[in-house]
Amino acid sequence: MKDILNLKTISWEDGKVVLLDQRALPHTETYVVCTTHKDVAKAIADMTVRGAPAIGVAGAMGLALGVFHSKQQDKQGFFKEIDEIKENLLKTRPTAVNLKWGLSRVHDALKKNANFEIDKLKSLAVAEAKKIKEEDIACNQKIGENGERLLRTGDTVLTHCNAGALATAGFGTALGVIYTAVNKGKKISVFVDETRPMLQGARLTAWELKRAHIPTTVIADSMAAPLMRQGRVQAVIVGADRIAKNGDVANKVGTYALAVNAHHHKIPFYVAAPISTIDFNCGSGVDIPIEKRSPEEVTHIMGQRVIPAGVAVSNTAFDITPHELVSAIITEAGIIEPPFERKIKELV
Amino acid sequence: MKDILNLKTISWEDGKVVLLDQRALPHTETYVVCTTHKDVAKAIADMTVRGAPAIGVAGAMGLALGVFHSKQQDKQGFFKEIDEIKENLLKTRPTAVNLKWGLSRVHDALKKNANFEIDKLKSLAVAEAKKIKEEDIACNQKIGENGERLLRTGDTVLTHCNAGALATAGFGTALGVIYTAVNKGKKISVFVDETRPMLQGARLTAWELKRAHIPTTVIADSMAAPLMRQGRVQAVIVGADRIAKNGDVANKVGTYALAVNAHHHKIPFYVAAPISTIDFNCGSGVDIPIEKRSPEEVTHIMGQRVIPAGVAVSNTAFDITPHELVSAIITEAGIIEPPFERKIKELV
Repeated sequence: MKDILNLKTISWEDGKVVLLDQRALPHTETYVVCTTHKDVAKAIADMTVRGAPAIGVAGAMGLALGVFHSKQQDKQGFFKEIDEIKENLLKTRPTAVNLKWGLSRVHDALKKNANFEIDKLKSLAVAEAKKIKEEDIACNQKIGENGERLLRTGDTVLTHCNAGALATAGFGTALGVIYTAVNKGKKISVFVDETRPMLQGARLTAWELKRAHIPTTVIADSMAAPLMRQGRVQAVIVGADRIAKNGDVANKVGTYALAVNAHHHKIPFYVAAPISTIDFNCGSGVDIPIEKRSPEEVTHIMGQRVIPAGVAVSNTAFDITPHELVSAIITEAGIIEPPFERKIKELV
Repeated sequence: MKDILNLKTISWEDGKVVLLDQRALPHTETYVVCTTHKDVAKAIADMTVRGAPAIGVAGAMGLALGVFHSKQQDKQGFFKEIDEIKENLLKTRPTAVNLKWGLSRVHDALKKNANFEIDKLKSLAVAEAKKIKEEDIACNQKIGENGERLLRTGDTVLTHCNAGALATAGFGTALGVIYTAVNKGKKISVFVDETRPMLQGARLTAWELKRAHIPTTVIADSMAAPLMRQGRVQAVIVGADRIAKNGDVANKVGTYALAVNAHHHKIPFYVAAPISTIDFNCGSGVDIPIEKRSPEEVTHIMGQRVIPAGVAVSNTAFDITPHELVSAIITEAGIIEPPFERKIKELV
């Protein structure tokens, strides 16, 4: 399947990790060059790179970068250092499980081959991180193939935040489904929630969809409900930051309000995400930690204060959509329909 | 009842209409002095003054200002001019019915006394506009008295946009209910939707509530639903721009999404508005015109573009909440409960 965008969100280049700076989009396409694992941790925390699958790949690359540049001569010191690097990267964002998953893949590969020499372990870490990236792109293309069957030509899809090429190593999850449908000749239009407070929909999804020449209309988040009522939305497709064993979905705040509205208007609500997003240690949504981010993301817009000083602000970056409101979860292994708990167990 | 804020939103001062400039809030408290009816029309269109009841009063003051400064010597020319002024003011904002109502009150008073001399008609128009203003404040205080009984001490109320002193001639509708409950010694906290795209909640409601020393937390609009799910919201109270005979409510976009979510979470959803907000020419919500505002309100924030050029934007300023989702309408004449069509008829 053709990748409409062919974006280099995350790359390994000569002992450096290069990240497309998503904070500068849609205005400028600039890249941040990370020379140390701490640079990568900072880039994840400050949302230079964001989106659950992208964070997973960036985390793996960051760990590989730390390993690659390690000055440790003895194995014990070497493994102690990589444990520390892993912990440091892990604590940057608490909600997306893909970060933990990506870090563990590299970490496990090293542990499993602990008898190798340090130089060989370094190559191994880099190879594993690169492999995770390639697998993520291939996985998204499979998600697209599986999900596009849910869309009919003429449909208008509503999406929230950015679950596109920018949120992954490439191609995207929710947007990957749309790209695949369009690649197959279906006529699809998209409503994009601007996605306050960080405006990933307005800035990133609109930018991607424009680049892919897909008819796109950006709306304030609160305009989705009246559009649903007017019959102008045929499906909602979003990504996920973590999925519990029972199918409860953690995703960008605003997803739950959309799911309730989709349910009220009898519109299918789909979640597109790789299997690596499922956390088998989480029984349900209540077990998923929800990141609270800085109040300044709400009190200030474009560097200017909008809310009077001294007024409190709540800024939870994610919310939980209970599985009852999810019509299907689109994965690389197939479409999972309710009852999710049993189907997830069967599929994996 | 004590007016906690005592704001001069709209005043008649020596042949001028003085408006608190709501675009400059919460940063500076400045006033716009209108010397002609065209100044008032511009101030309504550009949202220097906003909020359905405030627009009603400002419209009446604007018409009175045009009448007051008329240079017409003969009655026919005089009445032709005031018809034109009325039409010019009416077309500034299409959704709030109070504008039409305020203009008609002044216009009808003149028509009814068409035999008066022009100078006397001028005084009459000014007196009527001032009377509308005083009535609006008294009306809001009655709405507060009627509505506060719906709140218990310890409750947290969620509100959207600004239906406070700034949206009226003073005291407010939805916020008037909260102010009255607080005045009576009840402990009330408030969640305020920031209310994209114009941020009236973040800028105006937060400013009012801070001034009134009421514990307030501002949230992105999409955060209301998870708070409801967590049991942290006991009631939603909003204002209205127009209410149809059957109880359907036009209000700031975002109201409908909240109503659906309140319904889903079994939280009461109240609309606080003066009887003048009910349009007896509208059978239901489909008859209410919904204002579309400039795309720039969404594409640009704080003067900076956030959405890539060339991407479409939809910016409908209001939405319709069907009466089935409204628990009660709080008016100066009492609380109207379903079935609304019959109860509205009985009450008025």
